[in-house]
Amino acid sequence: MYSSQLLETCAEHLSRLPGVGKRTALRLALHILRMEEGEVRDLCEAIRAARFDVHYCAECHNISDTATCSLCADPRRDHATVCVVETVRDVMAVEATEQYNGVYHVLGGVISPMDGIVPDDLEVASLVERVAAGGIGEVILALSPTLEGDSTNYYIYKLLQSYAVKVTTLSRGVAIGDELQYADQLTLGRSIVDRVPYGAK
Amino acid sequence: MYSSQLLETCAEHLSRLPGVGKRTALRLALHILRMEEGEVRDLCEAIRAARFDVHYCAECHNISDTATCSLCADPRRDHATVCVVETVRDVMAVEATEQYNGVYHVLGGVISPMDGIVPDDLEVASLVERVAAGGIGEVILALSPTLEGDSTNYYIYKLLQSYAVKVTTLSRGVAIGDELQYADQLTLGRSIVDRVPYGAK
Repeated sequence: MYSSQLLETCAEHLSRLPGVGKRTALRLALHILRMEEGEVRDLCEAIRAARFDVHYCAECHNISDTATCSLCADPRRDHATVCVVETVRDVMAVEATEQYNGVYHVLGGVISPMDGIVPDDLEVASLVERVAAGGIGEVILALSPTLEGDSTNYYIYKLLQSYAVKVTTLSRGVAIGDELQYADQLTLGRSIVDRVPYGAK
Repeated sequence: MYSSQLLETCAEHLSRLPGVGKRTALRLALHILRMEEGEVRDLCEAIRAARFDVHYCAECHNISDTATCSLCADPRRDHATVCVVETVRDVMAVEATEQYNGVYHVLGGVISPMDGIVPDDLEVASLVERVAAGGIGEVILALSPTLEGDSTNYYIYKLLQSYAVKVTTLSRGVAIGDELQYADQLTLGRSIVDRVPYGAK
């Protein structure tokens, strides 16, 4: 249909990216046709570098440009507190709150037998090793509040019981700004059971 | 905010593409991190090729992988009929209808003094040259029905008056599938004035 096979190939490759449909891919390819030469070179180099030059931190498995990520390498952070998250995006989400000053441990997913994901596919063993090595006082389980996330939380909790480490998890409750009548039953129920003293920070 | 400058740079470059916001760019960059190595190389090569290896047809200025595009090079097409369009996308749109067997002339835009686009910025002179060279019986003006498109239609029409060539334009009327009560006044009015015999193909 297109008069240029090269344009079609470019659109075809772009359409394999998540959330990019055939029409969007064509629009992007036609835009690339008219971009500055330097811009196109920089774009290709940035894509290549993201795939081939980004490392994973040896300590927390977060992405990093160096062997140890900037968070693990920061002496001002509290290295005795480890927040366990599923993915790199969760690290970004927690960092964006500016409420956490500890370090992280990126599991790389959650245990999900339905999807064939078992503990050995995740960074569970390396978490236990970190705790076993000592120096960690608290492990915060910050996985998604789904069935798989809760199962993984429990699995890690059991593994860590033989170590002298406090294991906590995120509080559940009504979201800030939510109207009570629209909050789901489970969450509202939990927020009553887990109520906190008024005026507490 | 990100622990990898390379990831941030990749997201930054992706967010410069049209319709790609900061969040989408980050999602794409994180996807690229996990793509197969070969896939990433192919993507970069496809982008590079689209920018550096795609040519414009010497005849009609459509995009092409060769000096003359596949449409202009096709002996089965009617080279005496030239459809004048704004962009490469319009060629694709007309081709998709499968109702046209002539060739094209891509102007590269429309005359728009507000945006500083004058006839010299467009492929107007080369259109007149094509007509002057002879062998063309009909020029179909198929620009967008906007103020700028209509002005450009008229400008080209005046230029072509000194040549023995039929100049036509797209019919305007109620779109197929439209409900009459929702058709805009101008279009409905035009469709009454330009009414055609019932049963005409």
